[in-house]
Amino acid sequence: MVVQEKLEVYARQVDRRLEELLPPAAQMPAPLHEAMRYSCLAPGKRLRPALCLAAAEAVGGREADALDAACAIEMVHCFSLIHDDLPAIDNDDLRRGIPTCHVRYGEATAILAGDALFALAFDVLANARASAERRIRAIAALTRAAGSDGLVGGETTDILCEGQEVDPPTLRFIHTKKTGALISASCVIGAIMGGGAPNQMASLGKYGESVGLAFQIADDLLNETSTSEALGKSAGSDKLRGKATYPALFGIEASRRAALAMVEKAREALTGFHSEFLDGIAEYSVERMR
Amino acid sequence: MVVQEKLEVYARQVDRRLEELLPPAAQMPAPLHEAMRYSCLAPGKRLRPALCLAAAEAVGGREADALDAACAIEMVHCFSLIHDDLPAIDNDDLRRGIPTCHVRYGEATAILAGDALFALAFDVLANARASAERRIRAIAALTRAAGSDGLVGGETTDILCEGQEVDPPTLRFIHTKKTGALISASCVIGAIMGGGAPNQMASLGKYGESVGLAFQIADDLLNETSTSEALGKSAGSDKLRGKATYPALFGIEASRRAALAMVEKAREALTGFHSEFLDGIAEYSVERMR
Repeated sequence: MVVQEKLEVYARQVDRRLEELLPPAAQMPAPLHEAMRYSCLAPGKRLRPALCLAAAEAVGGREADALDAACAIEMVHCFSLIHDDLPAIDNDDLRRGIPTCHVRYGEATAILAGDALFALAFDVLANARASAERRIRAIAALTRAAGSDGLVGGETTDILCEGQEVDPPTLRFIHTKKTGALISASCVIGAIMGGGAPNQMASLGKYGESVGLAFQIADDLLNETSTSEALGKSAGSDKLRGKATYPALFGIEASRRAALAMVEKAREALTGFHSEFLDGIAEYSVERMR
Repeated sequence: MVVQEKLEVYARQVDRRLEELLPPAAQMPAPLHEAMRYSCLAPGKRLRPALCLAAAEAVGGREADALDAACAIEMVHCFSLIHDDLPAIDNDDLRRGIPTCHVRYGEATAILAGDALFALAFDVLANARASAERRIRAIAALTRAAGSDGLVGGETTDILCEGQEVDPPTLRFIHTKKTGALISASCVIGAIMGGGAPNQMASLGKYGESVGLAFQIADDLLNETSTSEALGKSAGSDKLRGKATYPALFGIEASRRAALAMVEKAREALTGFHSEFLDGIAEYSVERMR
C-alpha cells in the first residue's frame, strides 16, 4: 500500500534526524538523556511528523524545510505520552510495545525527561533553518496546540471526566484538544515551514483536525476490541478506567459512521491540494477499525 | 532599603501582567486554569523577572520591552517549582507559604498545570511585542536554560545524588544548572529584549550566573538554620533527604565565604553598566544569610 510505504519513508527520515537532535545518552545527567532517547526513539508510526513533511510539500516547499519542525512535533507528542502514562495520570505500563518511561527509569526521571523533551522541541524550532518569522509562527502554533487550550487541556478534561457521565460536546472537546490540536498543528506547521499562504495553512489545519478526530475514534474502537499485543499498549484500559470514549457514548456502529464522516470532511479540506499521501492518510486513519 | 523597594515595584508590575497573561480561572478545564493561577500568582519575590527588567534597562532599553519576557521567565520558574515539589521528586507540601500545587489540586492536575505553564511561557514569548529576531533569540535562551542542559538537567542530577557522597564539581554542576541557568538567562533575555549588544548579553549572563550561585548557597544555609515559617517552605528538608548542599560539603563558614566570593564576581561582571538595582541585588542575594 502506497500510503503505508510513504509513511515508513518519512518515519525513517524523522528517526535519523531525531537521533542527531537528541543529546547523546552519555551526556550528564546520563539517566535523563537515556530516558529521553528511550521514549523518543521507540518505534512509532511518526504520523504527526509525516503530516508535517507532507504539508510542507503540499504547499510547494521541500521536505528538508520542515524536517526539524517535524522532529520538534514528535518530541512534543512524546513528552505528552510520557506524562500521560504516569501513575498519577493514566498509569500505563506499556507504550509502543515496551515498558513506559517511568516503569523503566522511575517516576522522577520520567517527569523530568518529559519536561526536557518539551524544552528541546522549542529549542529545535528556535534554531531551525528558516526565517525568524517562520520559526516564530511555527513556535506559536506549537505552543497553542500543546498548552492548556490544546493537548494539556484535553488531557486534563479527560482525566477529570473519568468515571463520570460525559455529554457529546464535552467528548468532542476532549478529542479536539487531546488529539486534534497537535495533528492539526502538525499540518499547519508544515505549511508554515514550506512557505504556504494563510488560506493553505487554514485548510490544512482543518484537514488535520478531522484526521485527528478520525484517528481518535478509530483508536477508541480498537482499544475496545483489540489485544494489548496488537496495540503495543494496554487494551481495554479505557473501559476499566471509565474513560469517556465514542463507542461508550454512541455505540460501535455510530462511532464507525462518525469516523467515516471525519474522513470525508478531511478530504474536502484537501480541495486544491494534490497530495496523494495526505489523501491516503485520511482513509488510513480509519482502516484499522474496519 | 532601595533594592528591596525596587524589587517590590518590579514585582507589582510583573504580577499585574501575569494576571492578564494567565487564562481566566473559569476557562475550561477550570481546575487546570485555577491551578496555573494558584501557583503562578502566589506571592513571590519575582527575582528572575526583576533581573530581566533591570537588564533591559541596563542596556538602554525600556522595562516595557521586556515585561512579557519577564512574565514568561516567571512561568518557567513556577513550572519547575510545581514539578520539583511533586511526591515523586522533592515531595514538598509547602511553597511560598501555601500548600503546594499537588496538595491543593491533586497530582495529575499539578503535573499538567506545570506543563501548561511551560507551554504558555513560550506562547507569551512568541507573541511578545518585539522583532521576530529578538523573540527567537529570547526563546532559544529560555529553552536552553530550562532543558536537559539547564534547570531540568540540574534537578535530575540533584535527585539522582540524594543520599550519596557528592564531590565539589558535581555540586557545582547541580547549582549552575538548577539555579544559575535560569537566573543567568533572565539577565540575558532582558538584554536581548532591551536591544543590548552581544558583549553586554555575555556580561549580564555572567553576572546572573554568579548571583544565582550566591542565592543558592545562601538558600542552602537558610534551609539548614531557619524555620519553615520564615522560609514559606519546609526547613531542614535538604538534610532530611540527604541533598547535596554547600554547607553539608564545605561547612557553614566556608559556604559563607563562597557566597561572598560569588557576589564579588557578579559585581565585576557589571563593570561598564550603571545599574544600582543589579549592583544591589548582588549584595541582597547573601544578606539573608548573615
